Amino acid sequence: MELSVHSDEHFMKQALKQANIAFEKGEVPVGAVVVAENRIIARAHNMTEQLTDVTAHAEMLAITAAFDAIGGKYLNECTLYVTLEPCNMCAGALYWAQLGKLVFGASDQKRGFTLNPKNLLHPRTEVVRGLLENQSESLLKQFFAQLR
Amino acid sequence: MELSVHSDEHFMKQALKQANIAFEKGEVPVGAVVVAENRIIARAHNMTEQLTDVTAHAEMLAITAAFDAIGGKYLNECTLYVTLEPCNMCAGALYWAQLGKLVFGASDQKRGFTLNPKNLLHPRTEVVRGLLENQSESLLKQFFAQLR
Repeated sequence: MELSVHSDEHFMKQALKQANIAFEKGEVPVGAVVVAENRIIARAHNMTEQLTDVTAHAEMLAITAAFDAIGGKYLNECTLYVTLEPCNMCAGALYWAQLGKLVFGASDQKRGFTLNPKNLLHPRTEVVRGLLENQSESLLKQFFAQLR
Repeated sequence: MELSVHSDEHFMKQALKQANIAFEKGEVPVGAVVVAENRIIARAHNMTEQLTDVTAHAEMLAITAAFDAIGGKYLNECTLYVTLEPCNMCAGALYWAQLGKLVFGASDQKRGFTLNPKNLLHPRTEVVRGLLENQSESLLKQFFAQLR
């Protein structure tokens, strides 16, 4: 059976492509895409080093680009695919965006938002976790192994 | 006794000026300044409407400008003055910035980060709350009264 171009897996692979671009640039390899009506409206990767800005996470850049693309402030009809579990900052941003659906890959066992006792997302945001997590994790491990 | 130009109150008044600029532009009136070595290195006000970006809070814009000003990724020697208690997103951003000191005015009883059971700030960030809170609150009340 072929992989539908509209599957979660298809879009997560696009997010992984962004993570790979980050990797090549010496950034912590995290990538994200925002999808509306089965179409990618924004792509971004972590740029904290390049921008000298610790808030320049893939999710922040992707949703800001998505606001531009739709000309609106809310992403309730959109899905964000991101290769690593969002941090508290990003989860707080997704709250304000009233994100429709969040799909993330690897868990962040140190700084993931799900470690928080309170749900930081919007109550209506659907969450899918663990999609292609092995691919995301191995990219991150490879990156941090290089640094040592 | 004169007000020292280096007092917390002096800098909060500068943040209130930013909040007033936001007010005049039809933005929720929140302002912020970042101070390093008793000098203002960044000023910003809420721009969510103008930028059509719900993440464009005064704090986010101020710290991004501060990273530019210092050419570094960490604000551990800086103080952020903001007229309203930061939300979870902004607190998460301040965590990554390893902010030295946070001084805020009015409490946000719906979306303030201190409502969270877990401290979202960096453990080394000093917090002062309630400075000139009446001035900040009355500006916010005036703004929301206008909308009705």
